[in-house]
Amino acid sequence: MPQGEPLTVPDDGLTTKQRRNRPLLMVNTGDGKGKSTSAFGLALRGWNQGWDIGVFQFVKSAKWRIGEQTVLERLGELHTQTGEGGPVEWHKMGSGWSWSRKQGTETDHEAEAAEGWGEVKRRLAEQKHTLYVLDEFTYLMERGWVDVDDVVTTLRDRPGHQHVMITGRRAHPALREIADLVTEMQHEKHPFDRGQKGQRGIEW
Amino acid sequence: MPQGEPLTVPDDGLTTKQRRNRPLLMVNTGDGKGKSTSAFGLALRGWNQGWDIGVFQFVKSAKWRIGEQTVLERLGELHTQTGEGGPVEWHKMGSGWSWSRKQGTETDHEAEAAEGWGEVKRRLAEQKHTLYVLDEFTYLMERGWVDVDDVVTTLRDRPGHQHVMITGRRAHPALREIADLVTEMQHEKHPFDRGQKGQRGIEW
Repeated sequence: MPQGEPLTVPDDGLTTKQRRNRPLLMVNTGDGKGKSTSAFGLALRGWNQGWDIGVFQFVKSAKWRIGEQTVLERLGELHTQTGEGGPVEWHKMGSGWSWSRKQGTETDHEAEAAEGWGEVKRRLAEQKHTLYVLDEFTYLMERGWVDVDDVVTTLRDRPGHQHVMITGRRAHPALREIADLVTEMQHEKHPFDRGQKGQRGIEW
Repeated sequence: MPQGEPLTVPDDGLTTKQRRNRPLLMVNTGDGKGKSTSAFGLALRGWNQGWDIGVFQFVKSAKWRIGEQTVLERLGELHTQTGEGGPVEWHKMGSGWSWSRKQGTETDHEAEAAEGWGEVKRRLAEQKHTLYVLDEFTYLMERGWVDVDDVVTTLRDRPGHQHVMITGRRAHPALREIADLVTEMQHEKHPFDRGQKGQRGIEW
């Protein structure tokens, strides 16, 4: 993995170091596999740098617990026990966010999604985390469950040094516009095409 | 992350369970970011399932130690200490593979790459690992450092239940042909375009 060299040096008045350390807004989109896996891989990398990691899974089913949650929460415990890496918080919607009093009750997905975004906004304002993974967040924008202008303004104007990684198909053009890094993961071939179902360790 | 449902059920004489548990050959290719990050994310997921993970980094510089290596090796130690997850081996070329007597000496990259592939072949024959990550392996095929037919035959006819994930740009057509899953990661926007260099935690 060679260290990237810039193609051009921009006339933005910043030093190379300032430019290097600029906080990034990253988007993994497209129909292909690897959007979330890559985002959690980035969280792993960040943990190793001692970053404070906050994962917010905007998915319907809270029953679904993926391997990355188990491992990243375990790494968060390791941090508490030994000081290695950084702290990790993992939150997901589905039957109420973990910080919510409504937890465990049947909830309205749209309201719950909006509540999740509200919490992310508060944390960004407080500069709570170094890296935010907003998994499957693009769908909220697509469905109008969050206000696109509010999302764009909040992310673009976030204070301090906070990285944000957003995953999901069909990323909104306004999100692509303000992002520093956009990867379109294209589906070329998948076992589902051949009638194979998802399997343990590969899909979750 | 919903569980995948197949689009069609193939007439291949296999039960759904047999089809589900078929070992996979996966390829992350394209110019975009996320090929290796996603492969190491998959290793994380596999570790959590108790899989035996073998990572082989076919990169020139052994000085480059990425966060994933530190974390996955730490998880391998955890397995030894507590039985959680699975064992992890991480090998990389650059100044001699860890199993080689030539380690630490200036080596010929082509010979070293071929030696790495020879070791992977032996391990596949012995069914040593559950998941092999062959990071940046596509370049060996592209440069003719390994024999394409040998790679195709070995991977296609590998015994038992061994998953293989290969990363790198410009995957060889013969590799795409035999792969079960191919994701093309397309570069849409990257900070390097704006003159930003790679940064700690994001690129390594």
